[in-house]
Amino acid sequence: MRTPVAPISVERIEHGTSTIAQDLLVTEEPLEIRLGFGPETDRQEMRLSVTMRTPGHDEDLAMGFLFTEGLITNAADLLRVAYCENVKDDEHGNVVRAELHPSVEVDPARWQRNFYTTSSCGVCGKSSIEAVHAQCVRPMGTVPVLDHAVLSSLPDRMRAAQAVFKHTGGIHAAALFNVHGELLLLREDVGRHNAVDKVIGAALLGRMNTDECILLVSGRAGFELVQKCVVAGIPAMAAVGAPSSLAVDLARKSGLTLIGFLRGERYNIYAPIRKE
Amino acid sequence: MRTPVAPISVERIEHGTSTIAQDLLVTEEPLEIRLGFGPETDRQEMRLSVTMRTPGHDEDLAMGFLFTEGLITNAADLLRVAYCENVKDDEHGNVVRAELHPSVEVDPARWQRNFYTTSSCGVCGKSSIEAVHAQCVRPMGTVPVLDHAVLSSLPDRMRAAQAVFKHTGGIHAAALFNVHGELLLLREDVGRHNAVDKVIGAALLGRMNTDECILLVSGRAGFELVQKCVVAGIPAMAAVGAPSSLAVDLARKSGLTLIGFLRGERYNIYAPIRKE
Repeated sequence: MRTPVAPISVERIEHGTSTIAQDLLVTEEPLEIRLGFGPETDRQEMRLSVTMRTPGHDEDLAMGFLFTEGLITNAADLLRVAYCENVKDDEHGNVVRAELHPSVEVDPARWQRNFYTTSSCGVCGKSSIEAVHAQCVRPMGTVPVLDHAVLSSLPDRMRAAQAVFKHTGGIHAAALFNVHGELLLLREDVGRHNAVDKVIGAALLGRMNTDECILLVSGRAGFELVQKCVVAGIPAMAAVGAPSSLAVDLARKSGLTLIGFLRGERYNIYAPIRKE
Repeated sequence: MRTPVAPISVERIEHGTSTIAQDLLVTEEPLEIRLGFGPETDRQEMRLSVTMRTPGHDEDLAMGFLFTEGLITNAADLLRVAYCENVKDDEHGNVVRAELHPSVEVDPARWQRNFYTTSSCGVCGKSSIEAVHAQCVRPMGTVPVLDHAVLSSLPDRMRAAQAVFKHTGGIHAAALFNVHGELLLLREDVGRHNAVDKVIGAALLGRMNTDECILLVSGRAGFELVQKCVVAGIPAMAAVGAPSSLAVDLARKSGLTLIGFLRGERYNIYAPIRKE
């Protein structure tokens, strides 16, 4: 079992004085996702992707990744996820096989990430947004009516639950809250997109109703993160940092509530925007 | 010409009071890089990648990306980078053609990012580090002897030069400094990896000597960013945030000086580590 933190010796400098100290780092390791087709005895499989991630909740990550990348459209499309045994010793725990339902058709030309999904229909903001909308299979949930006090409290609630951040100070988080500000799911990862995929994957695996929920991310709200939220039909997203132009465009055209710079009593609502 | 910031209306909440305000967001738009081979009259080209980036310094980005991904091994391999004219109106400025020297051989199977480069030789930390070392064509520069006061001043110097951050509060930066703490290059981008690629690309285009330089990044030091630094032979890297386990492993095995949590008078030296 690979662990999410790793001990290390470090030279700590403070006002010019050096000491050797023990520290904890967040673990970063590659994860390879393979797709399996048909019955398990059939070893036909396809290498899908390698992503650098923090070990832990790899099943959630595989589910969320396959879903937000548009390879599967619901939880039932994925029969199971398991670590591969037929790998080298030092690769154990870093390779998973995702067994797809026989009805799922995968077009190898479509899953080439960072490329076909975006450029098949043009390379501009408009076409990027259209590509996301073409991918959406779930209706957007009901936009939650979020109380100001609840919203303001979310970053502290997320931070308090971040086990790995406490030890390392160096990991992203994504958290799903209900309208009362109760934490439903929290996942941490060295990659922002992985943290969001893990939350979405866990929600799918748990057949959770994410209507009226809000997803909070620890960093900025770029296009890719908002895209995942929109595809999953989660109706609201908040970020501790700034959104990008394309993230706001996508939120406005998708009916997603998007909040940025959420820092206690102050925050900005980027979408929907009220008439001036 | 696409601009790095975009104006927007936003609803600002402060202690429960709402006002409509004008704000600036960092621009995020896709950039497609195409490879061109042979003389320019020959229109043979290959679509290489699409990445979400902040417009500006796209030539630096193309050069840095091609170099750190291992498609080219020096500046002379890239004859020129130009925006494509034969694209739809709303794609203008988002598609570049990188004209490679006829001697450069590109293996389509190798450039499939996030996959072949990592998994062709195994999926573990050890093999990831070996893959980076196999890719290195430049010797590591001479490790700079950095004065404590100089090092402590770097984050403020970088921040002061960040034009887009000043307006948006939401963009990553990478900066190259010499041993005296003089800022040689600064690039901002919505993507951390793009900011680093732009700096490395600009250094290559300017035939800059990066020996005894240090690269500062505004966020955390993950494996991918340290990899770019190692491939470019830049001997030292500092991050305002935390490094990951694999980033430290790679730095230690590459002779790269790696500093994390650089915040004024306090910072940690992760590599090289002195004997305890």
